[in-house]
Amino acid sequence: MSDRKGLLIIFSGPSGCGKDTVLREMLETNDDLRVSISMTTRKIRDGEIDGMDYYFVSREYFEKKIKEGSMLEYAEYAGNYYGTPKAPVDDMINDGINVILEIEVQGAEKIRKLYPDAVSVFLMPPSLAELEERLRKRGTDDEETISHRLFIAEQEIRRATEFQYAVVNSEVEKAVSDFQEILNSEKHKISRNPNLISEVINNV
Amino acid sequence: MSDRKGLLIIFSGPSGCGKDTVLREMLETNDDLRVSISMTTRKIRDGEIDGMDYYFVSREYFEKKIKEGSMLEYAEYAGNYYGTPKAPVDDMINDGINVILEIEVQGAEKIRKLYPDAVSVFLMPPSLAELEERLRKRGTDDEETISHRLFIAEQEIRRATEFQYAVVNSEVEKAVSDFQEILNSEKHKISRNPNLISEVINNV
Repeated sequence: MSDRKGLLIIFSGPSGCGKDTVLREMLETNDDLRVSISMTTRKIRDGEIDGMDYYFVSREYFEKKIKEGSMLEYAEYAGNYYGTPKAPVDDMINDGINVILEIEVQGAEKIRKLYPDAVSVFLMPPSLAELEERLRKRGTDDEETISHRLFIAEQEIRRATEFQYAVVNSEVEKAVSDFQEILNSEKHKISRNPNLISEVINNV
Repeated sequence: MSDRKGLLIIFSGPSGCGKDTVLREMLETNDDLRVSISMTTRKIRDGEIDGMDYYFVSREYFEKKIKEGSMLEYAEYAGNYYGTPKAPVDDMINDGINVILEIEVQGAEKIRKLYPDAVSVFLMPPSLAELEERLRKRGTDDEETISHRLFIAEQEIRRATEFQYAVVNSEVEKAVSDFQEILNSEKHKISRNPNLISEVINNV
């Protein structure tokens, strides 16, 4: 279908549920899909690339962008700003590119208000018990951190009702194909194809 | 996902755009999908089966059902009533079966009001010119009938904005797979899975 604006896809889910893995596979198989790049004031680390991992900017520049209203959402962690600049997202959408924002539940709420047409997908672990096992297997967190992560995960899962779609990540391949079907299906929404009817009728 | 009610799927499109072919393929590949059976007062024809092609009933019975408010929609053509009884549709949905109503654009409007959760899909010909060619190839209609059908088709296509999804039937296999993705995607709507969150959290 033609002259379609890109989809803005809000993608959330608790830490450890496999968002990055699903996202990587989606990006590999969809030429018209990009992930939005965050902006941060933290220092660039070895191996990171400016404009790919993050836009690395000064605190002054970030605060100027906040004041201008140029940030879709932002937060401050450990003395550094992290956020999503609006302009690159809008540019991609207007070019017909589908843009995924991987974002926390709080940030998602704000974006949904700014972009009521956004597609929102919540990636679910099969169960909290399974999530606990995955976090334990990663071996990066101590018991207290795991307990805290599970507590946060439960709060986030309860807010999944604010999203349109849920994809349960029992198996990565299945989750990726479910996500893909959601995107394909959204592209068939009549409201997203404003010229379709006149094209069919006028045979342009 | 669990304890899901069945989807009610409203399926419309102009005469000659291939609805029956697409529907047949969908029914063959989806065990949990049924088509709603219409009720009529017209006489049963050779080869037709009561309860499969139609529910064949008396005029008196049909009018009683109208009065009771038991018809989802109905119309009278050439002295016979045709309509969709509500009870079998509701029973199937409550049993988790997905039900397709193949219905005209007018009827669709009424059903959407009764079932705001219904999924509505409009099957589009690739163009009016292509539809004209298909109608001509069928060889069953004279020129006047073809002109009339095209006139009606254009009116119907203009009302496609009232539907959620458009599937363009350029190629049957592609149309069937688009339709399938829409149904799969709708099953992932959080609103259609009321118990999912508590199941993930409580690991039932």
